[in-house]
Amino acid sequence: MLAQRIERLTSSLVRDILAVAQRPGVISFAGGLPASEALLNVDLAALPPELLANAMQYGPTEGERGLREHVAERMAKIGFECRADQVLILNGSQQGIDLVSKLMIEEGTPVLVEEPAYLAALQSFKLFGADLRTVPLHQGVDIDALAAILPSVQMAYLTPTFQNPSAYCYSEAERKAVAALADTHGVCLFEDDPYRELAYDTPAPAPLVSFIQSAPWIYQGSFSKTLAPGLRLGFLIAHPDLMPHLIRLKQAADLHSNRLSQLIVSQILATGQLEPHLAKSLPIYRERRDAMAAALQQHLSNHATWSLPAGGLFFWVKLHCVSDTLALMRRALAQNLAIMPGVAFMASGRDDGYLRLNFSHAKPEQIEAGIAQLAALLTE
Amino acid sequence: MLAQRIERLTSSLVRDILAVAQRPGVISFAGGLPASEALLNVDLAALPPELLANAMQYGPTEGERGLREHVAERMAKIGFECRADQVLILNGSQQGIDLVSKLMIEEGTPVLVEEPAYLAALQSFKLFGADLRTVPLHQGVDIDALAAILPSVQMAYLTPTFQNPSAYCYSEAERKAVAALADTHGVCLFEDDPYRELAYDTPAPAPLVSFIQSAPWIYQGSFSKTLAPGLRLGFLIAHPDLMPHLIRLKQAADLHSNRLSQLIVSQILATGQLEPHLAKSLPIYRERRDAMAAALQQHLSNHATWSLPAGGLFFWVKLHCVSDTLALMRRALAQNLAIMPGVAFMASGRDDGYLRLNFSHAKPEQIEAGIAQLAALLTE
Repeated sequence: MLAQRIERLTSSLVRDILAVAQRPGVISFAGGLPASEALLNVDLAALPPELLANAMQYGPTEGERGLREHVAERMAKIGFECRADQVLILNGSQQGIDLVSKLMIEEGTPVLVEEPAYLAALQSFKLFGADLRTVPLHQGVDIDALAAILPSVQMAYLTPTFQNPSAYCYSEAERKAVAALADTHGVCLFEDDPYRELAYDTPAPAPLVSFIQSAPWIYQGSFSKTLAPGLRLGFLIAHPDLMPHLIRLKQAADLHSNRLSQLIVSQILATGQLEPHLAKSLPIYRERRDAMAAALQQHLSNHATWSLPAGGLFFWVKLHCVSDTLALMRRALAQNLAIMPGVAFMASGRDDGYLRLNFSHAKPEQIEAGIAQLAALLTE
Repeated sequence: MLAQRIERLTSSLVRDILAVAQRPGVISFAGGLPASEALLNVDLAALPPELLANAMQYGPTEGERGLREHVAERMAKIGFECRADQVLILNGSQQGIDLVSKLMIEEGTPVLVEEPAYLAALQSFKLFGADLRTVPLHQGVDIDALAAILPSVQMAYLTPTFQNPSAYCYSEAERKAVAALADTHGVCLFEDDPYRELAYDTPAPAPLVSFIQSAPWIYQGSFSKTLAPGLRLGFLIAHPDLMPHLIRLKQAADLHSNRLSQLIVSQILATGQLEPHLAKSLPIYRERRDAMAAALQQHLSNHATWSLPAGGLFFWVKLHCVSDTLALMRRALAQNLAIMPGVAFMASGRDDGYLRLNFSHAKPEQIEAGIAQLAALLTE
């Protein structure tokens, strides 16, 4: 007999889409994969031999001291002061969602989430038994709805910067308003921030948690989108009172994060290679975003509306006259086109006729062909 | 307000011991660190560039296909037939304990554990609310006690091969007896097997789960003890019915394991480098084991009894006339000697006067000095 939570493990539909999307010949707008061309060209020969040898042994649960310090320094640059002691290195930021779920959520715990929201966060919160309460988020966050729900929850999970899937970026005023509400009600704010560096027009405002005065908070970021997801490296920063619990939860989960990846990323940060790498990869993303914008404009303007994403990896497209995006996804997949139905990101299960279209993985010519194919499907 | 399970997060006493044990000048028998001299001398230049580039992207949750096949092949060699589909690559085998806890344990779930047992497994099971039922294990497993408890539990967690901390290795007859009991009662058997390759005298019998006919089962192993813990790579093998759940739990926990580590270990297995590496490192461990055996014989024979460990990393030493091993640990630490109190491994909290002494990390001359120091402490 298995634990009851296993009944809440969501079906593998999305895993199935992503598996099919990897097949040769499929044009995929379904996943959230970085462009292969923008991935780190890792220089393993540059790793100092004595540090490499040291990285083979067990290491500290919190992560390597040097890497934690680099993360704290980078945070200061975006307007968020923290100490290296407040940084916990993660095996990718998905792990932060698991650890925070363990910290905060048990059967029936009310948790505020945006609608839409990051699918795998919803899955983790549900696995631990959360009672999800949704705040609408499309081209703006509904502050009134948020103010009404916040007093009744234990935690709010927000992705204020270039959200997956909506691409929405909270204004500074919205960040301040939400932070003030969290302070008023003493609600723990969990900010997920993996897309910050993928800003194509202007830099994002400072993290929402930087405006918090007194409420408990947890912030997390990732090296998956800036360097390479295969390295599985992210980080979490938290209110000092929460750190001892989070460190013990990390220890129980996997003792510590991969030391070779930590060494590689530490060296990149120490030698100032991240900014040049971003300067090289951002134009690739911008070109693909613009290619998808042009293709949408050309082929889909009679079928849908959307906004140009200022960052991140996705267009969030509202279809006219489509009420079953899952059925559309299946029809597209039968024609070797992979798209992600918006309903997958809705904690309420509502299907409002949205699609999430990833623009980072397919090449510009595939983007054009795939969007034309989608338009043909919608015309049928 | 945090989840109730956080109250069950065990105190950081052992973390504190291990932190102190790392200080320069301390002789440490406290941790379970492989000998630095036996760690993998990783040859990053040998990694094929196209595979390295590919490893930077997101990968499959289950792990790399090639690595899963290598694991299945190795299992066949130790008498355990499984398919690569049944292999899930882990971020170290501690992660397997987390995933299996999620799969099987909720508040009040009865779980059978050996007494003593691996500390961090007890912590994880308790975190998820397990009601731990203990079966004595010292120089033999108490099959009658096991038969009496097994019908009332959901899962049995066993480390039948060179257990941490007792070093005990179940005979083939004991393995068959336990497997038959699991079959009779349909109880899920979770076998933790990280020390199998560290066999100093004769190879260990086939895994206990290889004797199971019908009961559900999960088996896990690790590359931490054979190659390098810093790579954080382990694997889990399970009954086919359990695999879909475990894969989804892994996805929710961290999407997938580090691909660079998977590539390194795949290459080592594919090119047959693991056996030569073990042939080089086993004599180092054997020498240290024998050094500790000689030192114990010389200095501690009036104070304690023990058996020579046939594998693994620890002596399990029963002290005469010591009822508070925690107090002894503190006195030793004040003199820069780190030892692990046996009570930490007892789910029941009983202190039977045992110490766990690691022989793999300290050099032979430190082992001699540290055991002499321990004897002096006991004489005081």
